[in-house]
Amino acid sequence: MRMTTHEVNIGGVRIGGGNPVAIQSMCNTRTSDTAATVAQIRALEAEGCEIIRVAVPDMAAAESIRKIRDQIRIPLVADIHFDYRLAIAAIENGADKIRINPGNIGGRDNLAAVVRTAMEHDTPIRVGVNSGSLEKEVIARHGGHVTAEGLVESALDKAAMIEEMGYGNIVISIKSSDVLMCVRAHELIASRTEHPLHIGITEAGTIWAGNIKSSVGLGIILYEGIGDTIRVSLTGDPIEEVRSAKQILKTLGLRHGGVEVVSCPTCGRTEIDLVGLAEKVNELVSRPPYSRLDMKVACMGCVVNGPGEAKEAELGICGGKGQGLIIRRGEVVRKCPESELLGAFREELDRYL
Amino acid sequence: MRMTTHEVNIGGVRIGGGNPVAIQSMCNTRTSDTAATVAQIRALEAEGCEIIRVAVPDMAAAESIRKIRDQIRIPLVADIHFDYRLAIAAIENGADKIRINPGNIGGRDNLAAVVRTAMEHDTPIRVGVNSGSLEKEVIARHGGHVTAEGLVESALDKAAMIEEMGYGNIVISIKSSDVLMCVRAHELIASRTEHPLHIGITEAGTIWAGNIKSSVGLGIILYEGIGDTIRVSLTGDPIEEVRSAKQILKTLGLRHGGVEVVSCPTCGRTEIDLVGLAEKVNELVSRPPYSRLDMKVACMGCVVNGPGEAKEAELGICGGKGQGLIIRRGEVVRKCPESELLGAFREELDRYL
Repeated sequence: MRMTTHEVNIGGVRIGGGNPVAIQSMCNTRTSDTAATVAQIRALEAEGCEIIRVAVPDMAAAESIRKIRDQIRIPLVADIHFDYRLAIAAIENGADKIRINPGNIGGRDNLAAVVRTAMEHDTPIRVGVNSGSLEKEVIARHGGHVTAEGLVESALDKAAMIEEMGYGNIVISIKSSDVLMCVRAHELIASRTEHPLHIGITEAGTIWAGNIKSSVGLGIILYEGIGDTIRVSLTGDPIEEVRSAKQILKTLGLRHGGVEVVSCPTCGRTEIDLVGLAEKVNELVSRPPYSRLDMKVACMGCVVNGPGEAKEAELGICGGKGQGLIIRRGEVVRKCPESELLGAFREELDRYL
Repeated sequence: MRMTTHEVNIGGVRIGGGNPVAIQSMCNTRTSDTAATVAQIRALEAEGCEIIRVAVPDMAAAESIRKIRDQIRIPLVADIHFDYRLAIAAIENGADKIRINPGNIGGRDNLAAVVRTAMEHDTPIRVGVNSGSLEKEVIARHGGHVTAEGLVESALDKAAMIEEMGYGNIVISIKSSDVLMCVRAHELIASRTEHPLHIGITEAGTIWAGNIKSSVGLGIILYEGIGDTIRVSLTGDPIEEVRSAKQILKTLGLRHGGVEVVSCPTCGRTEIDLVGLAEKVNELVSRPPYSRLDMKVACMGCVVNGPGEAKEAELGICGGKGQGLIIRRGEVVRKCPESELLGAFREELDRYL
């Protein structure tokens, strides 16, 4: 059961209001380098990215917004800090959403100017607060530390500032590099706002640790019914962020499609090279044409759980002594030597295309 | 707040009863190959594995149990399927726990013989049920499918069989390759038993997908206060299982120690090679002597969240234009060109040794 939030339309992608959780990423190209940024966005689109954000640190980047937007298919979000004029320029250049921290945009008058422009263009504003840039006053009010309560207070105060200016087309994000603090902050804010929530664990780290931290944190938040759009932050290629976000959503049943590979960890019972085989099966199904399929396959090392798992899957491989079985919905359809297993599996997979 | 369970002593490692969540893995060597198995266990011990399981598919493996146990420091668990005589032999050879599925051990009399031997040696029994080997009758009673309710029913029935034989030294595990089913099963069983729970997502897949699925599933289960010992199942080197289990527990505040690296995902604002730098910092702190430290460090690309995150960390790097700052508890202590950042960071880290 997902929490109820208002719907916000980000350049045609609707989040909140019961829409599917949309996948976001952020470019790490220089935004003023239109060609590089467009190339990266297209690669991300192909991977399944549904909303893309770019940093707008200067006017050249703000001017690039229009050129980039004309060459991509997914909504473009402009990320602005410090200078309200960049936010106005980004909106005027067609940004589908802007992300600002109203606390660092230079005061109430500047914020009002940004909100006025957003209102004219009906451009949603993401109010983003982050453990790394929480206001000193808020930290002071909460015992001198960054806390979940402080993050929520900061986010709600800022959303209220914009609402008082007559604009409610808002998305909120609260990010912390402390996973438990981030979870707690989402639990607190979910019952206190109906603005859609953009969720993420900030500065989660490199791919390995970042995937684990993001999966734990976002897994809990999403399982609690919270979150309308997701970004996995990884210190690495943004393509990895999209892949991870998809896998997290699929694991929670919030997204379907693709081939799910169930494979056993191998043990002293395994008599074929299952690790190698499972890697090859994963590689095979992650690429066209097999990536178009929506099914579950199993790569199992032995007869303990092999046939049972293979029964729950459409197609399975179950290893034996130097050979293996191909199992279709629980029926053994082929038995072949280890060297021919992958080929046989691929032939079976072809039947589903 | 963790769920209350009885304490079970597995060869000196106590689980349940408020003890820390113990980390397990399973060897993928042939158990009868004592040398290979001991070598793998020692590597796993060095990585932080606290309980190790081996498959016992034949009498040669059961006989190896004693030899292996004499050469390792952590408790040794014997995993037996189908043949109750192997379970008896494993116990007699000194296994610190056995894992059986009472449903596939050859009927009540054979189970009783195993339980009698376990009782004589005060050896805990893990009752393990698995989505891949759930009994046909249970599946039939639950609509013809493997369900969370069916898994719980099967596990509790089997634990009850052993308890009726007068033995309560039991650990329960319920594993499913379907993450949401696994979570649901744990939510159901946690309120219905006080036996400690061994938790894991079975057949989660290769390292990348397996880490995400395990982190989502085990993250939710542990966050709900459920779970006394954890095994991450990955189709890969078991060392990876231990590393992932440690990271999951650390993310949830259930384990401390080591250097946590917070690093930003980079964006169009980054003017140094932060991805490369963060990878190198991760590599550095994951090995001795720095792996002995217990602290948080931050690698940040720019001034938006950099100084703030670095303030929350003991030590931070914050990138600028071709150069960077070294920050100690929020104070800038050095400024140096990009090429010297890693060396300067290492020098600062040395102060904490």
